[in-house]
Amino acid sequence: MAEFLRVRTAEEVFSIIRQIQPLSWEEVQLDEAAGRVLAESFTAPEAVPHFARATMDGYAVRARDTFGASETLPALLLVAGEVYMGRPAGLSVDRGKAVAVPTGGMLPVGADAVVMVEHVVALDETTIEVVKPVAPGENVLWEGEDISLGQVLFPSGWILRPQDLGGLAALGVETVKVYRRPRVAILSTGDEVVPISTKPVPPGKIRDINSTSLVSLVVEEGARVGYRAVLTDSLDVLSSVCRKILFEHDMLILSGGSSVGAKDLTIEVLNCLPEAELLVHGVAVRPGKPTILGRTGGKIFWGLPGQPVSAMMICSAFVLPSLRRLQGISPEEISGGDGNTRTAVLSCRLPSVHGRADYVPVVLSMSEGLPTATPVFGKSAMISTLVQADGYVVVPQHVEGFDRDASVTVHLFSGRHTSRARR
Amino acid sequence: MAEFLRVRTAEEVFSIIRQIQPLSWEEVQLDEAAGRVLAESFTAPEAVPHFARATMDGYAVRARDTFGASETLPALLLVAGEVYMGRPAGLSVDRGKAVAVPTGGMLPVGADAVVMVEHVVALDETTIEVVKPVAPGENVLWEGEDISLGQVLFPSGWILRPQDLGGLAALGVETVKVYRRPRVAILSTGDEVVPISTKPVPPGKIRDINSTSLVSLVVEEGARVGYRAVLTDSLDVLSSVCRKILFEHDMLILSGGSSVGAKDLTIEVLNCLPEAELLVHGVAVRPGKPTILGRTGGKIFWGLPGQPVSAMMICSAFVLPSLRRLQGISPEEISGGDGNTRTAVLSCRLPSVHGRADYVPVVLSMSEGLPTATPVFGKSAMISTLVQADGYVVVPQHVEGFDRDASVTVHLFSGRHTSRARR
Repeated sequence: MAEFLRVRTAEEVFSIIRQIQPLSWEEVQLDEAAGRVLAESFTAPEAVPHFARATMDGYAVRARDTFGASETLPALLLVAGEVYMGRPAGLSVDRGKAVAVPTGGMLPVGADAVVMVEHVVALDETTIEVVKPVAPGENVLWEGEDISLGQVLFPSGWILRPQDLGGLAALGVETVKVYRRPRVAILSTGDEVVPISTKPVPPGKIRDINSTSLVSLVVEEGARVGYRAVLTDSLDVLSSVCRKILFEHDMLILSGGSSVGAKDLTIEVLNCLPEAELLVHGVAVRPGKPTILGRTGGKIFWGLPGQPVSAMMICSAFVLPSLRRLQGISPEEISGGDGNTRTAVLSCRLPSVHGRADYVPVVLSMSEGLPTATPVFGKSAMISTLVQADGYVVVPQHVEGFDRDASVTVHLFSGRHTSRARR
Repeated sequence: MAEFLRVRTAEEVFSIIRQIQPLSWEEVQLDEAAGRVLAESFTAPEAVPHFARATMDGYAVRARDTFGASETLPALLLVAGEVYMGRPAGLSVDRGKAVAVPTGGMLPVGADAVVMVEHVVALDETTIEVVKPVAPGENVLWEGEDISLGQVLFPSGWILRPQDLGGLAALGVETVKVYRRPRVAILSTGDEVVPISTKPVPPGKIRDINSTSLVSLVVEEGARVGYRAVLTDSLDVLSSVCRKILFEHDMLILSGGSSVGAKDLTIEVLNCLPEAELLVHGVAVRPGKPTILGRTGGKIFWGLPGQPVSAMMICSAFVLPSLRRLQGISPEEISGGDGNTRTAVLSCRLPSVHGRADYVPVVLSMSEGLPTATPVFGKSAMISTLVQADGYVVVPQHVEGFDRDASVTVHLFSGRHTSRARR
């Protein structure tokens, strides 16, 4: 294994992430399938609708029998009966005839259009006047017009939404093949880190922010957390825990080691694991330069900075895309964050240093046209900068900042909604 | 109870939804709190950090001892010791002294800045040369500088994100008071509706799309579905089921009744429930005009059109905001959809009829600046229009359509991500 790799650019890290192969697939019930990714393309096994249906309440007719009809010269039709909701039409529409049909009702044989009830004057029980002509196919949904038999409804890699599940339900599909959810272990290390419950915190110690924030980040990205712990900076402890839990997880995330010695520790832990391979040792981004990405027997191994703001930033920007890839999101869709971006206009100049990418938290505020992005400046290590922010802007490595009023891409932070209660 | 109400505008329905009171609150663990809404404002019970910390590896110094230092005229300082990560500093920095400190380490008494290790030349074990001055406070995070004691960190109504949970963890908070998740019952009715598993579907029947799509929509909005069923269009059946399940649910959603008779049935079911109150009977929108909103003893009662596209549209546009309100989202944030909107430019003219609001599905595609919104035209009742679409545009009641290149607000459909795999 290479002992030292040069610092990678963010784009190089994304290239490596794009090469991650999706996990195996599993078959899940429709109710469990929202947000999951199809592991194979889906071809419609039936046509929807499977019979021609009325899309309005009215009368099924032969369109040509209404041609030229008007208020002053209505078309006179005989009502041959009624179609009932949910039943076979059981009737036919011959020349000069009409059959009453409800919205969604089956179109009788012979009919090719439906006259809306609003355009009909009933003279008596069996005779109607049509006061407006209909074109063939008007107010009718033909067999297979919505979804045709054999149509590829979804490609492999499609993320299933409620309406997609509705389409599958219409086709009688009860289970779908989707990629498995990643099982993730999160290990927070550092001699200064104490559990959240510690009160008061002894001088020099800080509470474990990372396992809380990282767990909820990866869970929102669809992962399951099978193991989490705050552990001491000991190679023996860390490597034995990792070896023990490796089998039942797809990804290990170690956060910790802000000191120089501890940075090496994460590499040493990786080295102790079977088939260890170091892919990335340092990324030219701020914050989060001492990031590590490796593999161990097909499992993904992330070493994140211990500092909570850096750990969250790297997790948002790089770890989430790797989880998306494991769940079958196609490589072309892998970029920073969870893919939820927004274009905004910078409210002020955003300086940056050439030679590394800067990840800058911003607050979004709505305005006419594009929203405004205001950088949240603050010393590094301040969790409050992330609490204030709605997302982040990346100033790329070879760009020396953005001017005021520049149009920028904001990567929204994970979270079901962005709250604007405070603004 | 009023037997008839005039058709309401969409804005009138939102006004009614804004008046819904949030559910009671519950105390949950931090790990369960992502996406939940704070039921009271949160005041920091401690300061973060609770001791002054170094934000860089280097030497804790008195800033004034480095003033004027340069490569040619370095400041000479005596190293009085070292601060260890996670331990009390246990040292003080007097005039002319320096103490080695790691990133995150505790600042010793007397020091007011940290010289980065890159700006120091070690002459021997106990003597360093500082080649660049530091200002007071440089590379230091003061006690309470991130979060100050007594600061209101979150207002009531704040939606908790991973970084917010990180901030709470830093403060030693293990549980938070959040609004309860709504318990929802979904009843799909209609004589034409058969369960998904039905194969083949008899002529005139269709499979139950609504309970699948509505369940996953409301679950994504944070609700729990305690009951779901496909029931026949019978007042006896529907009212007895509703009475039975009412106690343990916060909201009943009936979808069904596309026929004239069945529309009345939903009102009759509401009338059979205790303390029934009809708030909305018809909304001036397309699709979804025959929408019903009522109350029954403090519970919300929705009657949605049976037609799947209309049911999903009304659920997306109106039911989700009512679920958000039950979960404590503030009235000012209640508008159409789940609040996730995007500004886009229309790719073509979008005509509409004066006198009702049109909800038009659109496909979003990325372009320079604002994304492009292309309407998905299709006959009503086509589930494929929603499958193709990423969201919808509302043409308001008193607007007769939008021109090509108009800037419009797109309400994104619910779903963890919008897949662009097919584009």
